[in-house]
Amino acid sequence: MAYTDFSVEEIDTVMQDAWNAFHVYRKFSLKQRAAFMKAIAVELENCGDALIHTAMSETNLPEARLRGERARTIFQLNSYAEACEKADWLGAGIDTAIPDKVPPKPDIRKMLVPLGPVVVFGASNFPLAYSTAGGDTASAFAAGCPIIVKAHPAHAQTSEIVANAILSAASTCNMPKGIFAHVYGAGFEVGKALVMHPHTKAVGFTGSYTGGKQLFDWGNQRKDPIPVFAEMGSVNPVFLMPEKLDAAATEIATMYAGSITLGVGQFCTNPGIIIGVESKALQTFVHDLGKAIQKTAPAAMLHNGIATAYKKNKDSALLQDDVHLVAESETPSAVENPDGGLSGLPTIATATGQAFLNNPVLHQEVFGPYSIIIRCKDMQEMIEVAKNLEGQLTSTLMATENDIKDNDELVEAVKNICGRFILNSVPTGVEVCLSMQHGGPFPASTDARFGSVGADSIKRFARPIAFQNWSNNLLPDELKDENPLGIWRTVNNELTKAAVL
Amino acid sequence: MAYTDFSVEEIDTVMQDAWNAFHVYRKFSLKQRAAFMKAIAVELENCGDALIHTAMSETNLPEARLRGERARTIFQLNSYAEACEKADWLGAGIDTAIPDKVPPKPDIRKMLVPLGPVVVFGASNFPLAYSTAGGDTASAFAAGCPIIVKAHPAHAQTSEIVANAILSAASTCNMPKGIFAHVYGAGFEVGKALVMHPHTKAVGFTGSYTGGKQLFDWGNQRKDPIPVFAEMGSVNPVFLMPEKLDAAATEIATMYAGSITLGVGQFCTNPGIIIGVESKALQTFVHDLGKAIQKTAPAAMLHNGIATAYKKNKDSALLQDDVHLVAESETPSAVENPDGGLSGLPTIATATGQAFLNNPVLHQEVFGPYSIIIRCKDMQEMIEVAKNLEGQLTSTLMATENDIKDNDELVEAVKNICGRFILNSVPTGVEVCLSMQHGGPFPASTDARFGSVGADSIKRFARPIAFQNWSNNLLPDELKDENPLGIWRTVNNELTKAAVL
Repeated sequence: MAYTDFSVEEIDTVMQDAWNAFHVYRKFSLKQRAAFMKAIAVELENCGDALIHTAMSETNLPEARLRGERARTIFQLNSYAEACEKADWLGAGIDTAIPDKVPPKPDIRKMLVPLGPVVVFGASNFPLAYSTAGGDTASAFAAGCPIIVKAHPAHAQTSEIVANAILSAASTCNMPKGIFAHVYGAGFEVGKALVMHPHTKAVGFTGSYTGGKQLFDWGNQRKDPIPVFAEMGSVNPVFLMPEKLDAAATEIATMYAGSITLGVGQFCTNPGIIIGVESKALQTFVHDLGKAIQKTAPAAMLHNGIATAYKKNKDSALLQDDVHLVAESETPSAVENPDGGLSGLPTIATATGQAFLNNPVLHQEVFGPYSIIIRCKDMQEMIEVAKNLEGQLTSTLMATENDIKDNDELVEAVKNICGRFILNSVPTGVEVCLSMQHGGPFPASTDARFGSVGADSIKRFARPIAFQNWSNNLLPDELKDENPLGIWRTVNNELTKAAVL
Repeated sequence: MAYTDFSVEEIDTVMQDAWNAFHVYRKFSLKQRAAFMKAIAVELENCGDALIHTAMSETNLPEARLRGERARTIFQLNSYAEACEKADWLGAGIDTAIPDKVPPKPDIRKMLVPLGPVVVFGASNFPLAYSTAGGDTASAFAAGCPIIVKAHPAHAQTSEIVANAILSAASTCNMPKGIFAHVYGAGFEVGKALVMHPHTKAVGFTGSYTGGKQLFDWGNQRKDPIPVFAEMGSVNPVFLMPEKLDAAATEIATMYAGSITLGVGQFCTNPGIIIGVESKALQTFVHDLGKAIQKTAPAAMLHNGIATAYKKNKDSALLQDDVHLVAESETPSAVENPDGGLSGLPTIATATGQAFLNNPVLHQEVFGPYSIIIRCKDMQEMIEVAKNLEGQLTSTLMATENDIKDNDELVEAVKNICGRFILNSVPTGVEVCLSMQHGGPFPASTDARFGSVGADSIKRFARPIAFQNWSNNLLPDELKDENPLGIWRTVNNELTKAAVL
């Protein structure tokens, strides 16, 4: 199916509708927002097999994965809806007046309010959970913002089905016209027009560094800069600490062969760099990981663009000085590549710590089932590697308690670069929960102070407003003395659900 | 006294020291951070009269104001220290593992950690409370960040006294070398070098739009963009609603004559635009405000640069089409201008709603004791004015309950542009408390999602990190099962101070 790019005039109409909808939607109660989000979840379920089959044909992802991803998308909508209504994220606070203070202290009450229309760019690798009705959409609706989704060209039809589900829920819930719009654009022009439009007040993006950085720059170049939250992936370094590696080299190799090749390596949390200190145990690890990789079949990637980029970036990495191929898959693919394109060939390389320190190319993400093992000559070199890594979504330590206690400088350096700090596990698999942080220092994301998974991601799209000297009946329910919504509030510096007396 | 600009090499040394200090300071407990901040407060008190007299000579501000400002600065340090230790701002959260979930849910725990060295640019109009040991400094120290202050050239000697107080407290509290540095630079080069330095991880600024926007742009143009929080002031519109104005025109005029001329109008919350609908009551208001302004004596401004800019911007505003002078001070100044320069002459102008809508010059801040009254032909035009205003630190409604209930569109439009929404009071006077929001949509500040007054401003300089699968004894105290610090945490979606069982 072919989709036509939206014109500048069409985008202007969409944004005007979103702006009008904003003025209605932001006055809807948290309960109404939550009901709308839950209705979208129901509609997604109602899409049935048609959605799954369309997504399969557009993304090459297997059925089980897509069913799981829809379940996750529904879970996100429902759990963010619950969080929205619970309102802990709202940061409601009240300082009551002290009239006899000099000067008198006025009554001040604060809560988050929505920023305005949010433009969402979906991810190619999560056609459901981080696309049209994905995490950014769920969090922006919870915040009280209308949403304009630019359909990902690689799964525009899937996106359209989901968009219709959202519009159907909007109709059921009597949402204002313009609460949601679905826009097509294969080139950069539509994206640019959306980010630069005066009615756009924030942007959510999941994808490549190049794409995310461009949106971020546009957002900042506006007459009135807007926040652009771009999650741009990372290489997710894994540090193999000596005592742990000695004890479990083979076990770690097996664990990581699975993580590196999961979903044909197409996760932003894929472990792209594994760092160890030269030792017999490291040799065992390299050998066993290589063997496991040889036995892992290649599989079709999301689309030919990604498969071609994978091959190019991998080949380029392997051509760098002092980089050696450890192993690549020797197992035939179980199924034909449906579109006749390239498959993602699981591949492991290795390089010395010095080679890594000297060559920025080796720091770059190779999106796909590829990982490079960095062999350091000693712990000091491992620390140097850690200190020279860019910002990451995740860092992982494979370590015993002694390893951690004996290597404070390394542990602190690794912690300092990441948004999620993992011990003795794998970075793939991002749990959707309130304590998750998915985001990290640049270039993992454009604002490390926020994340894009879990209900705290709502805060990206809201801002505090303080009401000064308002009478109780004119305040929003969230801030009224009697606390009619029964939410947590910080009253005169103390968290409480109690009414203000 | 003359201060020499720091060289690029000196700045590099300062930033390297700050970077080294960061790795020590961020491991200090919240209690240690709080103790350090309280020690600074004590040292500020110990500065005695010398500090006040130096500030008087550098800023032309009166003694009582500066003593009050020091008290406020001390209050900020102490109250943010208490908030720091209380740790509500830390957003600590725990999701415990569910091993039998499919796939298993890992243990995830989240809290805020400091960004790294923060560069602070002080405000000329708050030589103590928003300068060297001011709000940005207090919040960044609470967050766990070392600080580099660029002394404001207009009060470099005051800044040096305060810097020495901080260094003295740092010594008493055994802070690492580099925890605080004081840098001089009259030109833009030093500021640019500080913002662009790779070890700088965030910037705090209070001052002009031109200055703040430049820092923001530099921060975004870095290879790794950093958050630049610039509070750039605003015109703080005041809307006179019909029923209220009818009832209290004279009273409002008196109240606003005081607010417009307070501190020679040198507050970022100064009410620069007052909007009403043409009526007899508005004529009374204009008349009475004009009379009161005539009776208010001019006074020396902070320095000649500001006084010259005030005269230039005011004269330019008065020369615009359809702008008319209402009144200016006719009262002689009680004291000679100490440096022989210009005094800030209290002045009121007026223009029609249409003139305002047609002329962006009239939207701009005239920093000083000046305000323009916009006479709208009807409420619809007032709504148009509200919708055409840029982002503001504050908006104020002078309104009865009927005025509010009858004018929803206006109320919503006014609310949408501001960080603080005031009813029947004046915008000057920014209470330091947790529910305050000092910041607002661009151009009031560069990130409306944060504010620079109250302990929540700590959050500007911290980012969340999630610990996955860590054993209890290796976690930071804030996240340990037993909750040794006794802080509020969100455990499995519920706020509690209880231990995790």
